[in-house]
Amino acid sequence: MEDPLEFLRNIKSVSVATVNNGTPAVRIADVMLHEDDKLYFLTARGKPYYKQLKENPEIAIVAMDENYVTVRVKGKIEFVDRALLERIFEANPVMNHIYPGDTREILDVFCLPKGIGEVFDLSIVPPKRERFAFGGAEVVESGYRINENCIACGICKGSCPTGAISEGNIYSIDSSICLECGNCYEKCPNDAIDLPAEF
Amino acid sequence: MEDPLEFLRNIKSVSVATVNNGTPAVRIADVMLHEDDKLYFLTARGKPYYKQLKENPEIAIVAMDENYVTVRVKGKIEFVDRALLERIFEANPVMNHIYPGDTREILDVFCLPKGIGEVFDLSIVPPKRERFAFGGAEVVESGYRINENCIACGICKGSCPTGAISEGNIYSIDSSICLECGNCYEKCPNDAIDLPAEF
Repeated sequence: MEDPLEFLRNIKSVSVATVNNGTPAVRIADVMLHEDDKLYFLTARGKPYYKQLKENPEIAIVAMDENYVTVRVKGKIEFVDRALLERIFEANPVMNHIYPGDTREILDVFCLPKGIGEVFDLSIVPPKRERFAFGGAEVVESGYRINENCIACGICKGSCPTGAISEGNIYSIDSSICLECGNCYEKCPNDAIDLPAEF
Repeated sequence: MEDPLEFLRNIKSVSVATVNNGTPAVRIADVMLHEDDKLYFLTARGKPYYKQLKENPEIAIVAMDENYVTVRVKGKIEFVDRALLERIFEANPVMNHIYPGDTREILDVFCLPKGIGEVFDLSIVPPKRERFAFGGAEVVESGYRINENCIACGICKGSCPTGAISEGNIYSIDSSICLECGNCYEKCPNDAIDLPAEF
């Protein structure tokens, strides 16, 4: 696909999740700019959203386009210079209607400079997953893995909804189509399947 | 609007946020059924999503339709009888392609039986907000409030981006169009404005 961060900017109204006193919170927020591999957002200092970001700057983003292609991103935000506001209002003219005149004073700018992400294409069967990273973060590979305990019994292969598992001396899983459903892991009689990395 | 839970079922692919070891996680997930004022979802037992729900059953949901109407919901999920799977697959035939044959064994069903929510209509300026609750939860009212410290100086009125503030012996805020931006709160010289409730 195109750059997945540009995909998010093009969709513009994405879902941004935060943590609120240990519980999840999520709202639609606009990606205001995508520059130098960073995503920029606004929030008003009086919003619960702002308070949550100040207490815990980790965010998770997801958006899906009309073709059922989904992009997810996670990382830690940083508040940045409010001087960017003017450029953001130029690039997003609707903001002039929502915060007219001086009322934009209440807005702060933050950016996501670094993160891990995933493109998940549900337009095809089986869906295809691809992980990425930006800003110097390391890619977190997806999918269950078969380890050396494998006795090539073949039970896992029959349990996989997407046909991601191939035969071999030890069997292997195509991580790009692994749904991470865990059916192989539950069915394997020999503890030969390792859990996916946290994402 | 129509029932906001039915709105979510109609959009179907909504954003569901959870907490993952203190950080936010969010993914697109389908609302599989809406029955008796409850929303039903699926997850596979091997997914990080499942693990997160088992550790912390609080979720937050958001979805926006093509008219920029957003519905948000929060609450605690409960895993329910897997016997519902059959009906869910009937109501969502695409599931037969994603989890063909017996591979559906790896799926569990959960529901959101109770929660608080918000309809936010961004198709109009100013956007309009309406809170609701279901399953016996109590509605959490939105918006900043002006208290008896108000000296009717009028500073808040000029600071409001949406014109939500009306004059009076003490001024008042129309919570349905309050953006919760907090500009009035920052500008008030007399501590006469109370924070919105947590949502």
